[in-house]
Amino acid sequence: MSLFPQHIIARKRDGHALTREEIGAFVRGATDGSWADYQLSALLMAIFLRGMNREETVAYTDAMMHSGVVADLSNVRSRKADKHSTGGVGDKISLHLAPMVAACGVAVPMISGRGLGHSGGTLDKLEAIPGFRVGLSMSEYRAQVEKLGLCLIGQTAELAPSDKKLYALRDVTATVECIPLICGSILSKKLAEGIDVLVLDVKFGAGAFMKDKAAARQLAETLVSVATAMGKPTRAVLTAMEQPLGRAVGNALEVIESIECLRGEGPEDTMEVTYALGAQMLLLARAAKDESDAMFQLQRSVKSGAALKKFGEMIAAQGGDARVVEDLNRLPRARLTESFVAVRGGFVQKVDAMGVALAALRLGAGRAKAEDKVDPGVGVSGLVKVGEHVAPGAPLGVIHANDEQALAEAEEMLAKAIVVGDRPGPAPRLIDEVIGA
Amino acid sequence: MSLFPQHIIARKRDGHALTREEIGAFVRGATDGSWADYQLSALLMAIFLRGMNREETVAYTDAMMHSGVVADLSNVRSRKADKHSTGGVGDKISLHLAPMVAACGVAVPMISGRGLGHSGGTLDKLEAIPGFRVGLSMSEYRAQVEKLGLCLIGQTAELAPSDKKLYALRDVTATVECIPLICGSILSKKLAEGIDVLVLDVKFGAGAFMKDKAAARQLAETLVSVATAMGKPTRAVLTAMEQPLGRAVGNALEVIESIECLRGEGPEDTMEVTYALGAQMLLLARAAKDESDAMFQLQRSVKSGAALKKFGEMIAAQGGDARVVEDLNRLPRARLTESFVAVRGGFVQKVDAMGVALAALRLGAGRAKAEDKVDPGVGVSGLVKVGEHVAPGAPLGVIHANDEQALAEAEEMLAKAIVVGDRPGPAPRLIDEVIGA
Repeated sequence: MSLFPQHIIARKRDGHALTREEIGAFVRGATDGSWADYQLSALLMAIFLRGMNREETVAYTDAMMHSGVVADLSNVRSRKADKHSTGGVGDKISLHLAPMVAACGVAVPMISGRGLGHSGGTLDKLEAIPGFRVGLSMSEYRAQVEKLGLCLIGQTAELAPSDKKLYALRDVTATVECIPLICGSILSKKLAEGIDVLVLDVKFGAGAFMKDKAAARQLAETLVSVATAMGKPTRAVLTAMEQPLGRAVGNALEVIESIECLRGEGPEDTMEVTYALGAQMLLLARAAKDESDAMFQLQRSVKSGAALKKFGEMIAAQGGDARVVEDLNRLPRARLTESFVAVRGGFVQKVDAMGVALAALRLGAGRAKAEDKVDPGVGVSGLVKVGEHVAPGAPLGVIHANDEQALAEAEEMLAKAIVVGDRPGPAPRLIDEVIGA
Repeated sequence: MSLFPQHIIARKRDGHALTREEIGAFVRGATDGSWADYQLSALLMAIFLRGMNREETVAYTDAMMHSGVVADLSNVRSRKADKHSTGGVGDKISLHLAPMVAACGVAVPMISGRGLGHSGGTLDKLEAIPGFRVGLSMSEYRAQVEKLGLCLIGQTAELAPSDKKLYALRDVTATVECIPLICGSILSKKLAEGIDVLVLDVKFGAGAFMKDKAAARQLAETLVSVATAMGKPTRAVLTAMEQPLGRAVGNALEVIESIECLRGEGPEDTMEVTYALGAQMLLLARAAKDESDAMFQLQRSVKSGAALKKFGEMIAAQGGDARVVEDLNRLPRARLTESFVAVRGGFVQKVDAMGVALAALRLGAGRAKAEDKVDPGVGVSGLVKVGEHVAPGAPLGVIHANDEQALAEAEEMLAKAIVVGDRPGPAPRLIDEVIGA
């Protein structure tokens, strides 16, 4: 068998399944530069169009995961679980879910990529907390997971470096939307964290990466089957992403909403998804007898204040100002705030997630380009939810801005994103299905 | 319509036909470097797997042709015809066909690429003639075509530069064997020569680029239909390439065989293909009433010595030693010559073109890598032809070498390439079909 790039590319081009050795050569080639970028991208396109079967996807994910350091958390005695979301608007769930699960005795070692996003990623939200450091070393990470059972950091250069290389190429060669490649990208990084089990929040709908539910389910099934084949029990929860999750979109604004969740005052939809994901984490980690036991433990972690305390401890351990959990005024605020109101009364029929996300991006909450800086204070809070009744002139939300022009434009965008009509419309179903044994 | 590389790649990836503007942006991107190599190769792979229809292939070929200089031969009053072969072993036909056609009053402005080849290309063969210059400038080329009606030169950097770029990428990304891309590559260079009509020798079989006759026919049909759509009357002759053409393989050895053709002493198979191609050139150029008139003119050009004289004039005009046409000893010779003989008597059933080509390559007649230098004197001469009867111990051919080790290895390779058996086997049919109106 030849491991020349041309021969491997030709085999996939002709529709053959690649061997573990061929896939290994490809991923090594991406990592050490022995394959030229044009060869990598030719094979990526061939994979996009010819697909990869489960064995190939497992081999690819495994090679990606081992292209860098795999964290050794054997120092941590408790079971280790993580949650990954494919991304949605207003998705601040990691921030409060991780301390809730940690408070139930399951360690959560969470490493997030920064990525592009209309409204900031988990790392951007954490960095809205004054002083918070997401850039810990691997040994700091190990020590903190051992001590607190909780650590949320950014991806380091040592972790799955092949993914960094291949993702950048996929982004500019129209080879992003390919399930086996997405699977390798997500799982290689998550499984390199040193976890035992994994829960995935696979979102579908207007505000999600996967617009289509069938495609989201296919991705979820691939992720679950590949991770399970790699020895990591994994489940996926399929959740709808038509309207933003919760009532806040923006970095500091979402930290506030997460702290509200930890205080037992979180929005209903956000808590519904949080409990669904947390229950699966406890179940997979064998820290709960059954789903109702898991729910009980998670609710207790909130009621008792243990989860909020854990969040504060994590902030302190990572150099942040832990007083924010008591005093929300310590978080950055935008200079201008303005309510935008309903021009007519009725029922909220639609809050378009992408519309809100683009308004948040306009305000500076996210990144259009990788090198952009996010503005921690800006965004939207107090958003109405689908099905709620509003009176004419009543507020639909509050815009937080640092720029008059941006505020005006965001207001126009939000006016288009929110539809008020005579009837309530069908109630959206948030949690569609749990996939995995 | 977006002309961003990613968007164009995505459209072809999804199976859409690209517009003329999109294809223009792609070819411009290859020429001026505004597309990254990894984007070019991703699109090449998408084209390989999704195909291009005739309109796309015309647009692609046209953009490639106009990516550089298009020769202006309006100074040449006679009709201008060229012949292109997809390449075969022992294919020296251009060398004698061009002066034959020129002697019939149709100008032949022929620009060849160097390319890789087991046994040297047309340029390598011409360069076996002492002093012969293939590197004329465009104005020398124009002047010589005007004066002699004949010029054989190498491709300049000004001609279809996009093809140089894309071919190099295709070669290392497993995207060579794709009919629309091959069509663009061949025709862009040929049509940039300034010709009126074109005849293609599309070969199929063991020693050809296209092993399969159906694929060769498909390529021929595409070439003819695209060139015709671009306003250049074109026909293709499908010819078999199972055994080498003629009895000689090697640079100077093939020049000798071409001179023998011009003296009326050429091998039967070589002349059959030569006349078939030449007749189509004269017919398309409207320099012959019908096929028998064309054959008559071509044969007369040989019998009268006009074609040989034309060949000598071209050699002289391009700085070469024209005395070679009278004195073959002026051509370079290898130091060692050795006959290899039949171990048994019988009929020659097979002379495997690839086996002979690889033996010639081992002797130094061709290039394994682009930067290799060819050895002009080495090769094989006096090769037996399929169907001939040989006595035990009779010579099957003569090896010309400059290295004992290479000679011994080539002899072993040739012994495997030639099969002698009890029966003559089916007579090979050389000319399969003429394609084009």
